Amino acid sequence: MSNFKVPYKTYLEESELPKQWYNIAADLKEPVLPPLNGKTKKPAGPEDFTAIFPMALIMQEMTQERYIDIPEEVQEKYKAYRSTPLCRAYALEKALGTPAKIYYKYEGASPSGSHKLNTAIPQVYYNKQEGVKRLATETGAGQWGTALSIATQMFDMECTVYMVKVSAEQKPYRKILIETYGANLIKSPSNQTNTGRAILAVDPDSLGSLGIAISEAVEDAATHDDTKYALGSVLNHVILHQTIIGQEAMKQFEKIGDYPDVVIGCCGGGSNFSGLAFPFMKEKLNGNKDTEFIAVEPSACPTLTKGKFAYDYGDVGKFTPLMMQYTLGHDFMPPGIHAGGLRYHGDNATLSKLVKDGYIKAVAVHQTDTFDAAITFAKAESILPAPESSHAISAAINEALKCKETGEEKTILFCLSGHGHFDLTAYDAYLKGDLHNVDYTDSDLKKGFECIPEI
Amino acid sequence: MSNFKVPYKTYLEESELPKQWYNIAADLKEPVLPPLNGKTKKPAGPEDFTAIFPMALIMQEMTQERYIDIPEEVQEKYKAYRSTPLCRAYALEKALGTPAKIYYKYEGASPSGSHKLNTAIPQVYYNKQEGVKRLATETGAGQWGTALSIATQMFDMECTVYMVKVSAEQKPYRKILIETYGANLIKSPSNQTNTGRAILAVDPDSLGSLGIAISEAVEDAATHDDTKYALGSVLNHVILHQTIIGQEAMKQFEKIGDYPDVVIGCCGGGSNFSGLAFPFMKEKLNGNKDTEFIAVEPSACPTLTKGKFAYDYGDVGKFTPLMMQYTLGHDFMPPGIHAGGLRYHGDNATLSKLVKDGYIKAVAVHQTDTFDAAITFAKAESILPAPESSHAISAAINEALKCKETGEEKTILFCLSGHGHFDLTAYDAYLKGDLHNVDYTDSDLKKGFECIPEI
Repeated sequence: MSNFKVPYKTYLEESELPKQWYNIAADLKEPVLPPLNGKTKKPAGPEDFTAIFPMALIMQEMTQERYIDIPEEVQEKYKAYRSTPLCRAYALEKALGTPAKIYYKYEGASPSGSHKLNTAIPQVYYNKQEGVKRLATETGAGQWGTALSIATQMFDMECTVYMVKVSAEQKPYRKILIETYGANLIKSPSNQTNTGRAILAVDPDSLGSLGIAISEAVEDAATHDDTKYALGSVLNHVILHQTIIGQEAMKQFEKIGDYPDVVIGCCGGGSNFSGLAFPFMKEKLNGNKDTEFIAVEPSACPTLTKGKFAYDYGDVGKFTPLMMQYTLGHDFMPPGIHAGGLRYHGDNATLSKLVKDGYIKAVAVHQTDTFDAAITFAKAESILPAPESSHAISAAINEALKCKETGEEKTILFCLSGHGHFDLTAYDAYLKGDLHNVDYTDSDLKKGFECIPEI
Repeated sequence: MSNFKVPYKTYLEESELPKQWYNIAADLKEPVLPPLNGKTKKPAGPEDFTAIFPMALIMQEMTQERYIDIPEEVQEKYKAYRSTPLCRAYALEKALGTPAKIYYKYEGASPSGSHKLNTAIPQVYYNKQEGVKRLATETGAGQWGTALSIATQMFDMECTVYMVKVSAEQKPYRKILIETYGANLIKSPSNQTNTGRAILAVDPDSLGSLGIAISEAVEDAATHDDTKYALGSVLNHVILHQTIIGQEAMKQFEKIGDYPDVVIGCCGGGSNFSGLAFPFMKEKLNGNKDTEFIAVEPSACPTLTKGKFAYDYGDVGKFTPLMMQYTLGHDFMPPGIHAGGLRYHGDNATLSKLVKDGYIKAVAVHQTDTFDAAITFAKAESILPAPESSHAISAAINEALKCKETGEEKTILFCLSGHGHFDLTAYDAYLKGDLHNVDYTDSDLKKGFECIPEI
């Protein structure tokens, strides 16, 4: 390999695409504590989910099988846009003057502009198989709403998207895009649900949050026979589908003869981070590799770095089962930061456990630092990143600059989960100096913690 | 090849990327009439261009050499985002029920979101080589302004972009994007130039046009020693650089064992159409293939279908030499259609001659038909196309539907020159039924023709 130079972009052939998703539950040293029924506080069974999810996804949520076959029809839809490229950031390395090798897996190359399509497609597929006519969902930044509207279009189903109000107003183009793909978009909190009406009664100017929008969509699904709910992050089956990212990345590294020392992803509910990281984590859990993992969250919503490790609901309306997770309290209301996709009060249970057990390091970063990083990246690599992804970029740049100090030639991998084409108002605000940072003291967080149930 | 199924996307390895641009001048049966000095009406020499272009580009504008080496530094920048994928539109074929095989070369996969980066990079490179500090340019839809702002960033140069006013107002995100990449953006007509001031004096509410914006940028360059001008279309050197598209496509077709029967591109100044078509046209000119070529323009700016074939200026201010071309008159003002990149009064001289000589068929389409086509495409292929590219899609769909009638299994190739992420207001207007069409009678066009000089 002495004359071999790693290409800027590495793709896989269609025949090399993964044919199974990877389920990390099979490789954990200790099982994750089970979800509990929200009312009885007893371990939840499949029946706790049937009002809102099709059985195939409920089974995926709970299975201990290591690999799950990807249905052929889903594989075919994946082929239309995957593999996504594994990119070597030569220009960024040069701009930073680092001896580190920086790679990013560019999920923004999907037609929905983010990694969310990877789970939207199978979720729609399984719902369709079970006769569901309409899907209801929430969206924060709009990436998930876009992905689900595209996927429902693919399978000729209807789609209702509850979009967090502050995001809909910050991102009018995202709203039109979702409507162009044929979905019915409703700003949340809305007067369409009991949850929305109750919140508007107390605070008519509520900015909304992912937690509220989830409650509205879940209520919509639970109260309509032909409708199910689809979630874009947090749950195990979502993360299962996203492991296509990390599995592809592993094969791509194999092709170029490298392997990451550090794997980095931004973290809201955990699907993008875990989708990239878990296939690599398998090697760490099995003692084959000593990779470092970094989950990056906003300091304005510091679930992993300042949250409680406790059983909590996934939504404000307490419709979901209780999950053992890092949480700021299910009624925690983050400020209207531009990384709308990271404004969630909790995290996936498995991811939370891996943080708790020290397999994953969590860091929180300031909004302005993420935009500094985004601009540095855009000027070097020419791609405009989504504000969420910029959290990962910020940490990757920090790692690369550490290498500059120490002289280490680490291989750094991060997930560029989406492009920022619909986030230009955020860039405008940044360029005008209008962005602010939020740091919480313990007493700031106390109120949120009070709603976490005693188990 | 009996069991071989064409993949959804075909890429080239870095080592397979073209190392030369293709110059069609070497293969024309008759030479194109030379440009004339705008004042003396005598054939223009290099000295007619030196105030606004660096010598290397002037030489490329006039050369008869068949192949021009791509400088290594430019090849390296190309590698960061090329090849772009050759996509088989299986889902669109299915949606149309056509026996035709539809392919598109997706230039929207570039970080600037369109094919424009292919010429922005070499133009900036050659200017930098000759000591230029700043580039001035115009942009219509914003695709060229984005590309040039990215390319000037790559080579650490300054950039001033005169953006057609109606486009800047229809596309605020595009404006912020250009500014995010570090360019100075000025709405045209502006009070920064004599040309702009003269137009505003007559019509303070002028929507602007590419012709006016070109005049402003040319004047800026001609009146500042450290500044040159960069044009995103129309000229031979621009089209030369864009032949990277068609050359890649030929190699990609070779890989999958197919070859197009019909090659389709949208046409404003001609760079995207010609960049795809000319490498295939070489085979037709040399009698090796009998491919059909279709250039698609808006009925609201019908240069090739209703224009005069005559010597005319490239800009409203008459700064440029006279070119033999199809023109609606250099002061023709097209309405504010959403395909801003196609609002130009003329066409490249070589392309014009090939249309005149019957090698290329030109068709004009209505705005609403292009959006119908765009939505059909987006729902099938999941990618949201730029309004300009949607002209090509419209013609490709028509060809495919003809095949459905005749049963022919034609191979159709079109250029998807860019994505529509910054054109959502146009989609919004379409979805609301607010878009209108324009058709011209001969008498409507008479006024524009009056400004064309008698040669």
